[in-house]
Amino acid sequence: MRSYDELAAQAARDRQDSLTKPPGSLGRLEELAVFLAGWQGRERPRLDRAQAIVFAGNHGIVAQGVNPFPAEVTELMVRNFRAGGAAINQLCRVAGAGLSVLPLELDRPTRDFTQAPAMDAAEVEDAMAQGAHAVDANADILLLGEMGIGNSTVAAALAASIFGGVAQDWVGPGTGAEGDILSRKLQAVEAGLARHRPVTARETLAAFGGREQAAICGAVLRARELGLPVILDGFICTAAASVLTRDDPQVLSHCLIGHESAEPGHRRLVDALKIRPVLSLDMRLGEGSGAAVALLLLRAAVECHNGMATFAEAGIG
Amino acid sequence: MRSYDELAAQAARDRQDSLTKPPGSLGRLEELAVFLAGWQGRERPRLDRAQAIVFAGNHGIVAQGVNPFPAEVTELMVRNFRAGGAAINQLCRVAGAGLSVLPLELDRPTRDFTQAPAMDAAEVEDAMAQGAHAVDANADILLLGEMGIGNSTVAAALAASIFGGVAQDWVGPGTGAEGDILSRKLQAVEAGLARHRPVTARETLAAFGGREQAAICGAVLRARELGLPVILDGFICTAAASVLTRDDPQVLSHCLIGHESAEPGHRRLVDALKIRPVLSLDMRLGEGSGAAVALLLLRAAVECHNGMATFAEAGIG
Repeated sequence: MRSYDELAAQAARDRQDSLTKPPGSLGRLEELAVFLAGWQGRERPRLDRAQAIVFAGNHGIVAQGVNPFPAEVTELMVRNFRAGGAAINQLCRVAGAGLSVLPLELDRPTRDFTQAPAMDAAEVEDAMAQGAHAVDANADILLLGEMGIGNSTVAAALAASIFGGVAQDWVGPGTGAEGDILSRKLQAVEAGLARHRPVTARETLAAFGGREQAAICGAVLRARELGLPVILDGFICTAAASVLTRDDPQVLSHCLIGHESAEPGHRRLVDALKIRPVLSLDMRLGEGSGAAVALLLLRAAVECHNGMATFAEAGIG
Repeated sequence: MRSYDELAAQAARDRQDSLTKPPGSLGRLEELAVFLAGWQGRERPRLDRAQAIVFAGNHGIVAQGVNPFPAEVTELMVRNFRAGGAAINQLCRVAGAGLSVLPLELDRPTRDFTQAPAMDAAEVEDAMAQGAHAVDANADILLLGEMGIGNSTVAAALAASIFGGVAQDWVGPGTGAEGDILSRKLQAVEAGLARHRPVTARETLAAFGGREQAAICGAVLRARELGLPVILDGFICTAAASVLTRDDPQVLSHCLIGHESAEPGHRRLVDALKIRPVLSLDMRLGEGSGAAVALLLLRAAVECHNGMATFAEAGIG
């Protein structure tokens, strides 16, 4: 397990204070450069190799009529990712990230969590292992995203199970649920919370699913082993990674949250995790889109950190 | 005077609603793409040629001891811009903008506005003309920034003169004023407001200065003639452009504000202008740095807008 390198972080802070600007005047860009320095263990962090992974899964909970789109859209969007037509393709190109798309048994949805545990223990382990295996050990940063019709319902159930509160606190429109669909979404989450009382991270994933959530957990843990900083995306991705805090409250300290999603539960989630998102752009798409936009900011941070002249070099002061 | 093309904007909105994502789910990225489409007069906006201009000036008000740095730092920072060592150099590189640096008679500071008008009418016209002349008529977007020791004091005086309130409402630390320096900054702004009662934009620039503020006004007006969208930077740049609202309240409708600065007066300024900044990153550097970071977001917006597949193209729905 690689840990945060406080010496490298301090060297990065000292460098920031020597650069040709009033100390602190680059605000969050300074914090991001120091964060990367600490996790990468070098005074001057690099972002030469950025990997974005989108995990996709299908969910038995769609049988409860919780989503305006049919489950087939998950597969169609995976094809769209592979054809280069989705938002995440454009955003990875502009932000300089390589995109890996990993569909997880789309033809075998997890079970409806209002009726049974979504997965058994072996299915959880398998999806976590696939997530871990997908991580490029030579990357400088890892971006995580997801696709799965029905998975904002899963995310709401996970968040409520981990952080408490009622379904209403965590359920939002997702891809566009309103009226009866939204009511069914609330009922599904309530029914799931009444049926399952998981304690550990793996029990929680087994109870509510889904495979892409388990894969995100596997990837986050693998990145932590590697000392690889991570950018989580919005509500669904953050809820998935939050599962791990059941076993270790500090387990996400190598993770940024790319943006605060417009999905209402995300604010509550980032408050519970005490991680301030990098951006707030009213986005609510998923796919890792908010993580990819945040990578642009990290690039700005690193370019300033590594490229600026010091006061001494510029002959000032 | 090129005006906003509502037909192009509507075509861009229609395109956004046809792309493979829930409508509205890219949030501000959708709004930015539509804004660019409207001002560029084309359904698919482009950012092939981005120009950033940093105007620099010196200010007689520094005689009042309002800044912890000496006036010579303006010239030294101009050299730093030219040598490629400043934050704006790194940010323009990463955001793909060409940087023009335009020092405006640094050896001839404007007059101390507590004692006299900062400029005469001819000096105002000259600086405005230089600003207008610096704009690349073939650019797709214009970023504006400034450098000038003492110019956050000038910005506070301009903002108070235009939008009312007392010095305390608009004066902040700038490059790091505190204690006695901050007190003198407040007194200087109060004295200036008591001495001058300008009405028009040009009178306001003459009263408080400075040359870089007048140049920003000239560039904003020239961009409006060209139908060229503009990204303003933080407190000082926004205060400068606000001067123009004295003659025409709608004159900044082609302008975005790149970020909300940590300088406290900026929030009040963007509220008065009713323009929501693109980003909020606790930055307070100037130089156009917040505008350049915002350009990264515009690139993300345009890449999604132009590059994504429609539902029909992806065979969904």
